[in-house]
Amino acid sequence: MPEFKAVVHVMLRRAILDPQGRAVHATLERLGHDNIADLRVGKRIELTLNGEREAVAAQLDHIASTVLSNPVMEDVVVELDEVEPAHA
Amino acid sequence: MPEFKAVVHVMLRRAILDPQGRAVHATLERLGHDNIADLRVGKRIELTLNGEREAVAAQLDHIASTVLSNPVMEDVVVELDEVEPAHA
Repeated sequence: MPEFKAVVHVMLRRAILDPQGRAVHATLERLGHDNIADLRVGKRIELTLNGEREAVAAQLDHIASTVLSNPVMEDVVVELDEVEPAHA
Repeated sequence: MPEFKAVVHVMLRRAILDPQGRAVHATLERLGHDNIADLRVGKRIELTLNGEREAVAAQLDHIASTVLSNPVMEDVVVELDEVEPAHA
């Protein structure tokens, strides 16, 4: 069965305050990095899925917008690439 | 001065246990997703930097491997793209 490597990128929506990003930004400013703006911290989730492409793509979209992110507060982007099975 | 959009991807090294990834994976299995493997949760950090490309690239590499990640435990990958200034 084909194997796919997926990456799910989850970021807080622009309109929502990102306290972790603010804290990291403030730290960088204290260290002298005064040319930085708009620092935001999100999640990157990597996973492997087995199945047919169409089914896996639908499954990934479903998981990404229900379990892996909160669509009310977060934007989510998914990547899906077929890989050669390790034990071919 | 040129403006750059950077993305820093931080993942725990393969050899290091990822309890958050394990928890998410277990949840997905309980929900019936039995075709998933190797789920790992990392960070995606977005920021904007102003300056000349060479200086910004060096600064980003430095920040990524000191403030934004712990090289002992984490792998880090950076992306850097020049953007058109919003107020050109």
